[in-house]
Amino acid sequence: MKILIPNTIALPLTADVETVVYDIDADVPDEHRDAEVLVVWHNSSSWLQHAARVLPRLQLVQALASGADAVLNAGFAADVRICSGRSLHDGPVAEHALALILSAVRRLDRLRDAQREHRWDDEFIDEQSAVETRALHTLSGARVTIWGFGSIASTLAPSLTALGAEVQGIARTAGERSGFDVHADADATDVLADTDVLVSILPATDETADLFDAEVFAALKPGAVFVNVGRGATVDEGALIAALESGQLRAAAIDVAKSEPLPASDPLWDAPNLLITPHIAGNRPVGAARLVDDNVTRLLAGDGLVNQVRP
Amino acid sequence: MKILIPNTIALPLTADVETVVYDIDADVPDEHRDAEVLVVWHNSSSWLQHAARVLPRLQLVQALASGADAVLNAGFAADVRICSGRSLHDGPVAEHALALILSAVRRLDRLRDAQREHRWDDEFIDEQSAVETRALHTLSGARVTIWGFGSIASTLAPSLTALGAEVQGIARTAGERSGFDVHADADATDVLADTDVLVSILPATDETADLFDAEVFAALKPGAVFVNVGRGATVDEGALIAALESGQLRAAAIDVAKSEPLPASDPLWDAPNLLITPHIAGNRPVGAARLVDDNVTRLLAGDGLVNQVRP
Ligand SMILES: NC(=O)c1ccc[n+]([C@@H]2O[C@H](COP(=O)([O-])OP(=O)(O)OC[C@H]3O[C@@H](n4cnc5c(N)ncnc54)[C@H](OP(=O)(O)O)[C@@H]3O)[C@@H](O)[C@H]2O)c1
Ligand SMILES: NC(=O)c1ccc[n+]([C@@H]2O[C@H](COP(=O)([O-])OP(=O)(O)OC[C@H]3O[C@@H](n4cnc5c(N)ncnc54)[C@H](OP(=O)(O)O)[C@@H]3O)[C@@H](O)[C@H]2O)c1
Repeated sequence: MKILIPNTIALPLTADVETVVYDIDADVPDEHRDAEVLVVWHNSSSWLQHAARVLPRLQLVQALASGADAVLNAGFAADVRICSGRSLHDGPVAEHALALILSAVRRLDRLRDAQREHRWDDEFIDEQSAVETRALHTLSGARVTIWGFGSIASTLAPSLTALGAEVQGIARTAGERSGFDVHADADATDVLADTDVLVSILPATDETADLFDAEVFAALKPGAVFVNVGRGATVDEGALIAALESGQLRAAAIDVAKSEPLPASDPLWDAPNLLITPHIAGNRPVGAARLVDDNVTRLLAGDGLVNQVRP
Repeated sequence: MKILIPNTIALPLTADVETVVYDIDADVPDEHRDAEVLVVWHNSSSWLQHAARVLPRLQLVQALASGADAVLNAGFAADVRICSGRSLHDGPVAEHALALILSAVRRLDRLRDAQREHRWDDEFIDEQSAVETRALHTLSGARVTIWGFGSIASTLAPSLTALGAEVQGIARTAGERSGFDVHADADATDVLADTDVLVSILPATDETADLFDAEVFAALKPGAVFVNVGRGATVDEGALIAALESGQLRAAAIDVAKSEPLPASDPLWDAPNLLITPHIAGNRPVGAARLVDDNVTRLLAGDGLVNQVRP
């Protein structure tokens, strides 16, 4: 079995197969068009369409991204199995989400700004330790709601619990997941009323478009914190800015925006009490070789594949 | 038994005692100079000296700060027991330390600066996901060394382990503590050579003065990260700035400085790749009422006290 590995990642496989490293910016060489498995990472849509035309013996396309949307739309024959990289990004995205949550709650953005002015922020020192306001500045005792309680959330939630937070989730169906209470999105309003920190790890779909709007921000506990490591498409960014300006949101941190890279003229850059990172939570798959080994071994044995999204 | 509670903290006690709230900026009222227990929080040295003179029936001074140095030096009679607030600050300081560690490793300071310039930091995006450099930008697989492995470190370490870090400690004596390997400070050089992230949670003592000097920074793995939530007195700040400027330290974050509040003219403010927060890790005791209740109950029963530092 011949496997095409992209030149964008090192994948030391142990499965007993022939591996060929290919350039994601060049056509597939003629002598390798007999490959049965294609691994993709950072390939362009046009390259994927090219691959869909020139690899007649293909049985499996293994994406390493969390979602396989680009591969699904590339025109691969209907019997080619497509698997996603879901779970490879759980650790990295959870780590960055935790960094953003702590930064927003402990206001590292504000303190960095004060530092640039050579200013010891006495006002913040008092605010974060005063009996009346200190609960706002810690995860200990905070109610954290993760909207989109899937693979990444299950990795993130225990780190929040360890810091003393009470974590709950919102997803399409209610129930206990990985030991955490998850509510159905129909009950979101009640959940939000008691939420100190709202974390979004939602995918971009038709149903999630602009889900975080003025109504959602207004439903939160006044002075709540909002963190988004899901997708920018899920946020009404005008409503986010308004909620920060009014103080309804005390602080926010986002790794994703509707338009990326965010244009220099975008009003988000200067929204008060907002930290923006340039979509860096993921893009660092962990355990990719293990996943490819596993799926190739399963393919050879005729077993069911991991993360199969089609057919 | 009469207990004096400072007006700087709310302490709902359950022990069967008479509690009196006092103003830390005023003399102790005559009618309460018969108190047997004094709780102190944010009291000045001169107030403590006053209290040492006017409370003849005193049996216990319960400090809520991590160290009880100020109380020890106030001149209380030799038979008055003094207890510290050690452990009340474990959660808060560990939380802030984790925020600083993640900020330094994920470079939130640099990204905040880019945001202020309306700049999507493409260079950082590449650097943090490239195969050769991405290990620098995650705690997953990172070797973290905590120098000063006491109460706070024991709370912090499991949060780092949960993110995939390998955690070890340095203290005065070697041995396993809370399940972590702790090395004696005599072996520090070997430990540092293999350290990606060095975290200081050391107290200020004669032996720790300027402990973090040019030699220590040079002994670290090139490109390591340094975080200090202990005391500023432990750092040779000129050496810290030099190590940041040379790149020997890739980034650092400090909550404490030799001179606090840090004067506007201090060169630390502008050191490259350094985040400064204004000594805010602690100052938020958790479980103070429980500790006071516990020690008062023990005192009434004639049992040994918790956190007793004298006699
Ligand atoms: N910032 C980054 O760099 C980065 C990196 C990787 C991933 N991500 C984003 O993170 C997302 C989640 O990743 P994951 O691996 O955790 O995915 P996942 O395991 O598929 O989890 C997605 C969760 O979202 C929920 N959900 C989907 N549509 C919903 C709706 N309309 N209402 C309520 N809940 C809904 C799902 O609910 P059910 O379980 O009830 O279906 C599920 O709990 C990805 O789709 C991607 O957009 C971002
Ligand atoms: N930034 C803030 O807001 C904040 C707030 C609270 C506390 N702090 C600082 O954090 C410090 C630690 O607090 P903690 O509650 O964790 O104290 P702790 O339980 O007493 O632990 C202190 C640790 O430092 C070690 N140590 C002391 N002197 C040393 C030396 N010369 N060489 C090597 N190790 C040495 C001790 O080693 P042994 O166990 O071997 O004796 C012990 O492991 C406090 O002293 C305070 O300075 C800062």
